[in-house]
Amino acid sequence: MAKEHPRMSFNERLNELKDDMGDMGNSTLMAYKDAISTLFDYDEELVKKVTETGEKIDKMSYLFENKSMSTIAAEQPVAKDLRFIESSLKVGSHLKRIGNLAVNIAEVARHLKDEDVPEKPMHDIKKMAYLVEKMVSKSLDSFLNENMDLSRELHYDDDVIDDLFDKALDDITKTMFDDKDAINYMVYLIFLARFLERIADRAESIGNRTIFMITCEKP
Amino acid sequence: MAKEHPRMSFNERLNELKDDMGDMGNSTLMAYKDAISTLFDYDEELVKKVTETGEKIDKMSYLFENKSMSTIAAEQPVAKDLRFIESSLKVGSHLKRIGNLAVNIAEVARHLKDEDVPEKPMHDIKKMAYLVEKMVSKSLDSFLNENMDLSRELHYDDDVIDDLFDKALDDITKTMFDDKDAINYMVYLIFLARFLERIADRAESIGNRTIFMITCEKP
Repeated sequence: MAKEHPRMSFNERLNELKDDMGDMGNSTLMAYKDAISTLFDYDEELVKKVTETGEKIDKMSYLFENKSMSTIAAEQPVAKDLRFIESSLKVGSHLKRIGNLAVNIAEVARHLKDEDVPEKPMHDIKKMAYLVEKMVSKSLDSFLNENMDLSRELHYDDDVIDDLFDKALDDITKTMFDDKDAINYMVYLIFLARFLERIADRAESIGNRTIFMITCEKP
Repeated sequence: MAKEHPRMSFNERLNELKDDMGDMGNSTLMAYKDAISTLFDYDEELVKKVTETGEKIDKMSYLFENKSMSTIAAEQPVAKDLRFIESSLKVGSHLKRIGNLAVNIAEVARHLKDEDVPEKPMHDIKKMAYLVEKMVSKSLDSFLNENMDLSRELHYDDDVIDDLFDKALDDITKTMFDDKDAINYMVYLIFLARFLERIADRAESIGNRTIFMITCEKP
């Protein structure tokens, strides 16, 4: 809920923006976790919940943007505070996109639910999904607690994801070679791998933003 | 080049931001056109040029962001001007992402250059690529000239792209069924279709932003 209160102090406004970022982060992480859960244990209600959370994140991001812009215009914040708001806007965009990708994952789950997906590519996906969850969580921690060590870890994590992504594509391709009938739904698995890789990329970008916010250096 | 001039009038600053958006837009359209060109008529030098343009767009976007934020903080712009800057920041993100996707397309071209890709899926890609170019160009026109008719057209264009995307995936899947040897490089064609679909989505988002900027209504 957007609280509009003209006599709110600048610090109160900043704290509210920080709280909003925390809320958006929590919703995003929940959407992601639920989406992954539908993948391994399909649940139609949970798919709907992911879609609803995705829409909620869209709205939160929109309200956050408005609030940030009016805070900048009204308060003319100095360097560090301005950088926080600027970074929050970017992080908000990343979270919104991660939320959308979570919805995409839940949609893939719907396509895969009746297929007997071979173990090998599914194992790759499971490993990716697990690490990507850690990355999203870590990116939120790094940003909200201004922890640059975590931001730097995200680079290494993203390299691991890139390798897992290549391996997943290899295993998916091999499966299609061996089993023609798998070709139809394997396309969804290719997209799934790509969605996870994209979320990892966004998490890394949140880490980079955190470094920029603290050091003023473009990563 | 970021021109820093403290005594610049607000209107001069705004005009400079508008010019910057025009420059970013032109570079993005160029990166896209070159990327598509490498796909149908491979040229290593052109692939390199796309990569360089992508990097240039990244830098432009970064400088633009800095300039916008300091303009907002220094000038406390009123509603419509604030909305223009806010929208430009978002459009800048979209252009940056389209630039990155153009680089992705040029990388796909590198993978496909020695393959004898069957006509049918390539025909779908060609149709998509052509319409997406129109969409990117239209989205820039709509934003820079505040033309809401063009923004609205982008919704219909995006629906057409979604249908073409589904058709391309069908044709790609069929090709993999018929020709096992195509499976390896067909994965790149799947990504290619996805990249084009994503660019169309970004172009539509630029149109939506334009409507928001003019009417203040969330599309």
